[in-house]
Amino acid sequence: MTKEDVTMMILSAKKQAGLTWEEIAEKIDMSPVWTHSACMGMNGFSKDKAEALVSVMGLPQEAVSVLEEPPTKVWEQSVPTDPCIYRLYEIVGVYGPTIKALIEEKFGTGIMSAIDFDMQVVRVPHEKGDRVKIEMSGKYLAYNAW
Amino acid sequence: MTKEDVTMMILSAKKQAGLTWEEIAEKIDMSPVWTHSACMGMNGFSKDKAEALVSVMGLPQEAVSVLEEPPTKVWEQSVPTDPCIYRLYEIVGVYGPTIKALIEEKFGTGIMSAIDFDMQVVRVPHEKGDRVKIEMSGKYLAYNAW
Amino acid sequence: MTKEDVTMMILSAKKQAGLTWEEIAEKIDMSPVWTHSACMGMNGFSKDKAEALVSVMGLPQEAVSVLEEPPTKVWEQSVPTDPCIYRLYEIVGVYGPTIKALIEEKFGTGIMSAIDFDMQVVRVPHEKGDRVKIEMSGKYLAYNAW
Amino acid sequence: MTKEDVTMMILSAKKQAGLTWEEIAEKIDMSPVWTHSACMGMNGFSKDKAEALVSVMGLPQEAVSVLEEPPTKVWEQSVPTDPCIYRLYEIVGVYGPTIKALIEEKFGTGIMSAIDFDMQVVRVPHEKGDRVKIEMSGKYLAYNAW
Amino acid sequence: MTKEDVTMMILSAKKQAGLTWEEIAEKIDMSPVWTHSACMGMNGFSKDKAEALVSVMGLPQEAVSVLEEPPTKVWEQSVPTDPCIYRLYEIVGVYGPTIKALIEEKFGTGIMSAIDFDMQVVRVPHEKGDRVKIEMSGKYLAYNAW
Amino acid sequence: MTKEDVTMMILSAKKQAGLTWEEIAEKIDMSPVWTHSACMGMNGFSKDKAEALVSVMGLPQEAVSVLEEPPTKVWEQSVPTDPCIYRLYEIVGVYGPTIKALIEEKFGTGIMSAIDFDMQVVRVPHEKGDRVKIEMSGKYLAYNAW
Amino acid sequence: MTKEDVTMMILSAKKQAGLTWEEIAEKIDMSPVWTHSACMGMNGFSKDKAEALVSVMGLPQEAVSVLEEPPTKVWEQSVPTDPCIYRLYEIVGVYGPTIKALIEEKFGTGIMSAIDFDMQVVRVPHEKGDRVKIEMSGKYLAYNAW
Amino acid sequence: MTKEDVTMMILSAKKQAGLTWEEIAEKIDMSPVWTHSACMGMNGFSKDKAEALVSVMGLPQEAVSVLEEPPTKVWEQSVPTDPCIYRLYEIVGVYGPTIKALIEEKFGTGIMSAIDFDMQVVRVPHEKGDRVKIEMSGKYLAYNAW
Amino acid sequence: MTKEDVTMMILSAKKQAGLTWEEIAEKIDMSPVWTHSACMGMNGFSKDKAEALVSVMGLPQEAVSVLEEPPTKVWEQSVPTDPCIYRLYEIVGVYGPTIKALIEEKFGTGIMSAIDFDMQVVRVPHEKGDRVKIEMSGKYLAYNAW
Amino acid sequence: MTKEDVTMMILSAKKQAGLTWEEIAEKIDMSPVWTHSACMGMNGFSKDKAEALVSVMGLPQEAVSVLEEPPTKVWEQSVPTDPCIYRLYEIVGVYGPTIKALIEEKFGTGIMSAIDFDMQVVRVPHEKGDRVKIEMSGKYLAYNAW
Repeated sequence: MTKEDVTMMILSAKKQAGLTWEEIAEKIDMSPVWTHSACMGMNGFSKDKAEALVSVMGLPQEAVSVLEEPPTKVWEQSVPTDPCIYRLYEIVGVYGPTIKALIEEKFGTGIMSAIDFDMQVVRVPHEKGDRVKIEMSGKYLAYNAW
Repeated sequence: MTKEDVTMMILSAKKQAGLTWEEIAEKIDMSPVWTHSACMGMNGFSKDKAEALVSVMGLPQEAVSVLEEPPTKVWEQSVPTDPCIYRLYEIVGVYGPTIKALIEEKFGTGIMSAIDFDMQVVRVPHEKGDRVKIEMSGKYLAYNAW
Repeated sequence: MTKEDVTMMILSAKKQAGLTWEEIAEKIDMSPVWTHSACMGMNGFSKDKAEALVSVMGLPQEAVSVLEEPPTKVWEQSVPTDPCIYRLYEIVGVYGPTIKALIEEKFGTGIMSAIDFDMQVVRVPHEKGDRVKIEMSGKYLAYNAW
Repeated sequence: MTKEDVTMMILSAKKQAGLTWEEIAEKIDMSPVWTHSACMGMNGFSKDKAEALVSVMGLPQEAVSVLEEPPTKVWEQSVPTDPCIYRLYEIVGVYGPTIKALIEEKFGTGIMSAIDFDMQVVRVPHEKGDRVKIEMSGKYLAYNAW
Repeated sequence: MTKEDVTMMILSAKKQAGLTWEEIAEKIDMSPVWTHSACMGMNGFSKDKAEALVSVMGLPQEAVSVLEEPPTKVWEQSVPTDPCIYRLYEIVGVYGPTIKALIEEKFGTGIMSAIDFDMQVVRVPHEKGDRVKIEMSGKYLAYNAW
Repeated sequence: MTKEDVTMMILSAKKQAGLTWEEIAEKIDMSPVWTHSACMGMNGFSKDKAEALVSVMGLPQEAVSVLEEPPTKVWEQSVPTDPCIYRLYEIVGVYGPTIKALIEEKFGTGIMSAIDFDMQVVRVPHEKGDRVKIEMSGKYLAYNAW
Repeated sequence: MTKEDVTMMILSAKKQAGLTWEEIAEKIDMSPVWTHSACMGMNGFSKDKAEALVSVMGLPQEAVSVLEEPPTKVWEQSVPTDPCIYRLYEIVGVYGPTIKALIEEKFGTGIMSAIDFDMQVVRVPHEKGDRVKIEMSGKYLAYNAW
Repeated sequence: MTKEDVTMMILSAKKQAGLTWEEIAEKIDMSPVWTHSACMGMNGFSKDKAEALVSVMGLPQEAVSVLEEPPTKVWEQSVPTDPCIYRLYEIVGVYGPTIKALIEEKFGTGIMSAIDFDMQVVRVPHEKGDRVKIEMSGKYLAYNAW
Repeated sequence: MTKEDVTMMILSAKKQAGLTWEEIAEKIDMSPVWTHSACMGMNGFSKDKAEALVSVMGLPQEAVSVLEEPPTKVWEQSVPTDPCIYRLYEIVGVYGPTIKALIEEKFGTGIMSAIDFDMQVVRVPHEKGDRVKIEMSGKYLAYNAW
Repeated sequence: MTKEDVTMMILSAKKQAGLTWEEIAEKIDMSPVWTHSACMGMNGFSKDKAEALVSVMGLPQEAVSVLEEPPTKVWEQSVPTDPCIYRLYEIVGVYGPTIKALIEEKFGTGIMSAIDFDMQVVRVPHEKGDRVKIEMSGKYLAYNAW
């Protein structure tokens, strides 16, 4: 049983149960972003969260240890083609140097961690059309000098 | 006089005046993210904002029309190497499919616009080390069917 | 049952029934361009259009929910090799900067949306040989400044 | 004097004269799309159109023969990064196979020529926001069998 | 039954019957170049040629409609590695600009069509070693100006 | 004085003298294809042909030894973008395996040499539009077995 | 039965028989380099050598005609990763221009054939550690001028 | 003064003096392969060899220390286009796995060093046309296990 | 039975036995780094180590000879995406030229061998968070001059 | 004055003064690895270290603020060609998954930081040839779950 197998089981169980990712996330008491990415095999579960998910989704017990395995994070398109994901890539291309300059101005020479990191995706009502709001936060890491 | 020339003048004037991007942004009454990216030639100024910048930074009058020109947004590294920018690329690689799934769950089949779009970069104090917070918001655009 | 499975069923049913894409499109009251791309899995159906297609093509009922799923738009050749598709790529290479310049002249700094978008392909009789006419229309989106 | 030199002269003269591409096109009695692309060095002028442009823009006489030279059409980004041009690339990625299928359905096995080809870019008023309309037409070319 | 399936059947029948491509081509009254490429799935058959091939090679009747389908011309190596094919690629790299210059000198600004196109491969006896002769001919297409 | 310098001098002298490549080739008693490619720096001249060219075009004497230097054949676009050259690349992609199969059928396992090689480009009158004819011939080289 | 199938059979028979490539080569009276590469499907056998191999290795009779088929030489990594093969690639990168310069100095403008070619790999005893000696020899081919 | 500068001086002095690489190599008592590659900046000179070269070629004294600097070995084309160098690349593609297999058979699991390495290029007379012989020898390095 | 098959068996046996890589390494008296990489098929076992592993993990006897086979070291992502591995790639990008300069300063012109090489990964306790320590050591190899 | 300018000045002053990187590092009381990389523009100096370097190397005062600027870390070869740097890349390719597995075994799911990071390069005497020892240490960062 691989991580891919478990992802397939989760998607199938989700469809059958008519659950949203938000609902699944709530049931295991984690955020929707983390929950979805971990179910896709892009993050590893702690033992108790793996057990919670197995119980919520009615997965076989063997899935617990698979969900706990550390993920190998692989993506195959260095430039993504799906329009929804490409727009994010475009934002990095256009605004990446700006984010870098403002981090350096506010913190010093360093980066925002993508490991000690969290993210939310929110729907914000707006009269000219609702907006997608993405909030990322990562620990500032200063470059070491030695 | 090209956009690159004007960017050089801005950087030089900024250093001499000892101004931060936040201060420049405030003086022309725009956000720091937009201000920096437009000064880098990645966004175009309206006439009044171009005039404001020229006045604030002591640029030659001819720079106004250059700042107003629409930008051609080009980046040369399809996978960025600078660690600060690469981490953003990595976030898109790891969490791109998750953001897509949650947008679809919350809105329907569509994307977050990268054009009708805004962003803030904020320093958030935290006891275990301050955090970089990036907030993006873009209009939801539903795929047309015809 | 995946989107690929349903595409295979549609192609098989289409061949057996001797239907053209135009006829299928007409039966579900959509345009041929949208209908073909959605049958290929490149666009998602609304519930009623999915039901119409299932009925017209004699697909299993389970296909409805698959047709409704949001598509993940992936293409594998960053430069397409098929001559018919390559010519379109070539047009973007040769005339892309021109389209950009004329949009900026007519509208201001911004883009043509590829999401709020429609397209027709028409055969135009011509004495020196009939012509393919492709008409695209997309909403103008102005870059936000904030 | 190279094609690049002449392009620079045209851009400079255009700015000084305050002319739009539409106005320049009208003065030499050609379409705006062709006029812009030829001024960018992506198409070659006939002798009389070259002379007309030189006269309209006040270019040196030597520019006539340079404008007449056949272009070498080169673009450096196999995937364009500018958002306005990328959207066109995306349309080819998403709808390329659809355009191919419909050409085959309407004409037979063959392609739309990108050489015996013309294009218009039009602003179409629309209550929910004006739209960019791009009309391409190219001669249908059937694959030879021998 | 796909084009790949039919190609496999043809290769197998060809080996069993001990036929050359020249002989097959002669039997269906087409050229060897076109015949081979169409059997490989790189060109589409007309109905009568498809029926002729099915009869000559003893293929199942269902193969007729598959042979008639328009091909999707895909190659996976943008730079081919097989030495025999690489040499052709090398010729394009070395002599491409020369062919372009001579076409422009003899015809004007335009190209040789690869669609209204034919080719022969001939063995030419030579005292210092026989030579491969490749003759291509394509319709000259002049760039349109509009 | 480099090969690039000499190419520039040739192009300039050719324009001033109003000579075609065919005429230059005739004057030095070589073919137009070879003459153009050697003038572009893609082939090396023998001493007498270099002297002939220098005399015909009025180049400085020093150019003789530069024209004699062996060329380093470099092209920068692994997939060429100019439509005239791309069509040749496309022909290799579509018909490369066919040419290979027919060489093997006519000669045995081996290749057409691109070194012991010649080529002509001819204009062939045709009632439906004149045609470009490209004739290549290269020595058959059998793979060695040892 | 494909070339891949036959390669698998050879490897399996070789392991069972405990033969080295040198021994197999000797039994069919060919060199080890050619024998290995032909067994891998990178060269084609003559009829008698195919029969000899089939007899030596106890392969099915059908393998003879497969071994005789001309190979399609494909490699998938344009830059090889295996350290043993990469070192050879590195030698080409570092010493390629040097080999070219010395061939030109010793022979004139031309190349070493990779088709009329042979190679040996030898172990040379050396007090500071034995050495791998690779000897390649290819016919000098002069560039044609016509 | 950079390595590139010194290479230019050497090439110029070599042309003026009418020396071959073999003659230069002999004068400094090194092999032609090493001498050429070191003059191109692909290897570093020892102090005495640098002084010998400076004296032989009449270079400025400052060149000695530049010739001694360790080289940074860079090549820009991951697949070389020049036919003479490409053939070497092709040999690695076709015979790389064979060389690896024979090294493993003769020595064990390991590689041929490209660092403790030497090479000769020799002209070998042959009745059917002289041959280029390339002899490489590198120390066998066994993979460490620890 | 291939190296991939044996890797799968090892992973399965390891999970069932609840062993760590450190424990496996200790049982066969090798280092954890070498043991893991060899179990992944990236290094070859000596006969006695292969037998030890087969015995420790309860693998079939046939696995011994497979473990002894020399590995073909292939990786598919030229830029790795997994964050843990990418950080190592980043270190090579940022500090590669520095390591080169310091090796040259301490040893002379040459490299650190990646073949006569060993590595340890250690957990180092640290009050501000434990650290990963990677120690590599490789034999210095001086470039040969001949 | 850019970072590149300052790097050039440092290299020139270092050559003139006959200093090693180790000596420079000692004079500013930093490690040789950090000192070299910061002098190359790959790390930023604190104010006091910048002043120390300017004083030690006799650089112009203006260099202080340039040395303090945060670096933009760019490398152009995604696969490095210099043998000394390539070997490091190869180590990441071969041992990257092993390092990842051992970090996970020793720490949990996470990475070694390349930001809170230090490195030493040491010469280790060895009877069979001295060895290069590279020691890296980076803070372990656990993936966040939220």
